[in-house]
Amino acid sequence: MAALDGTAVGLIGLGHMGRPMARNLSAAGARMIVHNRSAAPMEELAAEGMTAAASPAETAAAADVVILMLTDTPAVETVISGEAGVLQGLRGGGLVIDMGTTKVPTTRALAAEVAARGGGYVDAPVSGGTIGAEAGTLTIMAGGAEADVARAMPLFDVLGAKTTHVGAVGAGQVAKAANQVIVGLNIGAVAEALALARRAGVDPAKVREALGGGFADSRILEVHGRRMVDGQFAPGAKSTIQRKDMDQALELAAELGLEMPATALSRDLYDRLIAAGHGDLDHAALIKAIDPEA
Amino acid sequence: MAALDGTAVGLIGLGHMGRPMARNLSAAGARMIVHNRSAAPMEELAAEGMTAAASPAETAAAADVVILMLTDTPAVETVISGEAGVLQGLRGGGLVIDMGTTKVPTTRALAAEVAARGGGYVDAPVSGGTIGAEAGTLTIMAGGAEADVARAMPLFDVLGAKTTHVGAVGAGQVAKAANQVIVGLNIGAVAEALALARRAGVDPAKVREALGGGFADSRILEVHGRRMVDGQFAPGAKSTIQRKDMDQALELAAELGLEMPATALSRDLYDRLIAAGHGDLDHAALIKAIDPEA
Repeated sequence: MAALDGTAVGLIGLGHMGRPMARNLSAAGARMIVHNRSAAPMEELAAEGMTAAASPAETAAAADVVILMLTDTPAVETVISGEAGVLQGLRGGGLVIDMGTTKVPTTRALAAEVAARGGGYVDAPVSGGTIGAEAGTLTIMAGGAEADVARAMPLFDVLGAKTTHVGAVGAGQVAKAANQVIVGLNIGAVAEALALARRAGVDPAKVREALGGGFADSRILEVHGRRMVDGQFAPGAKSTIQRKDMDQALELAAELGLEMPATALSRDLYDRLIAAGHGDLDHAALIKAIDPEA
Repeated sequence: MAALDGTAVGLIGLGHMGRPMARNLSAAGARMIVHNRSAAPMEELAAEGMTAAASPAETAAAADVVILMLTDTPAVETVISGEAGVLQGLRGGGLVIDMGTTKVPTTRALAAEVAARGGGYVDAPVSGGTIGAEAGTLTIMAGGAEADVARAMPLFDVLGAKTTHVGAVGAGQVAKAANQVIVGLNIGAVAEALALARRAGVDPAKVREALGGGFADSRILEVHGRRMVDGQFAPGAKSTIQRKDMDQALELAAELGLEMPATALSRDLYDRLIAAGHGDLDHAALIKAIDPEA
């Protein structure tokens, strides 16, 4: 597990995803430089032997590779292009890897800014949640130049179970948008199906069991279907995040002149769920927007 | 493979599903009595050694168990309650098994008619299509009394890879409705996601590959996603059948006072696809209703 010996890896954004990722990279032999807007998670990791940096610029100055694991697109813009941002410290030949879910046009624009400074850029959003981050079994969707993705691959091998190089810069974010569209819509599909079963007087747990292995089977039926059957909606992924991701997918589609009617409807159902005060529940709680008694 | 020795099994409805099912039961040792509205498939199976019956009543009179594998609810009503129907020939203690996709209220009403004649009734719709029917690997969702389902189980073991006893009469059809809701909606999800990728200039095949193994993964992504990527829409299951099944699910939901907004929208998208002349294509062709160039 010393595959990353000698590599100085910066990681900015030490939330529920970033912290376990930093620990996995450290355990694999990377020299970690970590930064976060609020101090507490930095101090936590510093106590474990990682180096805390005072800003994104300092992080980039000390690292061969800088990973971003941030909440949203504005945060990524600020951390890269803002005051004391990554661009202020980036080494020539440095590599920036954005593993959050970021808008495609912003991704392409930031990659151009990084390239103008002589750096490489890979967008590599993930699926798999905190469980995948902790276990190092994330699914990674990478966009970028061949050489940049090749440089990032030893890190991806530590963080994920599977990495696909989807295409040029931005292609990873397009794949992630596609991922979130399917996840959100399939949650809605399972929600309507299990609500129908319950209303028809049939045990939803039995229906879920009956459907396993057939064409209706999916990771969502397995994981989120179980949450619906059990009425257990601790996240997982919050409904507000799911809604944000579907908003981004719809924004991208609108820019491309593509109508996505089911995604638009599903976003509205998530709005309904959030308006009812359930934004902090797991996205599987969408069943409450279909069947309030679920 | 002589598990069914001595059992006289009637099978009515010798379409793409019924014919291979009859052959599998015959190969497992059942004495097959077959009937179909049009003669050709009956003659085909008679040439293979099965007994052709002149009517549903004759089929029922000669069989311990009568399986129905018909296209829609009116056909099931006619075959059971119509002139020279199953009820006219049913033996005392005979068992009727409806393996098609039939409306829930009709199922409950027909089961009551069969019970009044001293027969048992099991609704046991399937998932898995003609491939599953041929391989004997169908997923079977059974509703009925414990003893009736137990009697049917040796036949299900021949026809399917997995049988779930979901609940009382009608519960199998409720599970199938849930199955069709999820299948139709997840096809729509994959369609919007892959259309988005293509419009964004990213290879849909790469996106589909990237999503495999993550939360967006499903049998639909695997099978129908591949059909979309390849532009191969030979059925499989026709779009007209998918629309009919979603209609039935919506009708049931309406009777129960449940709104299923995503299912209603998806039914409309299938309408759009069928109106464009694609009703005979596989249900995966729904992507054409999102992205006409796909």
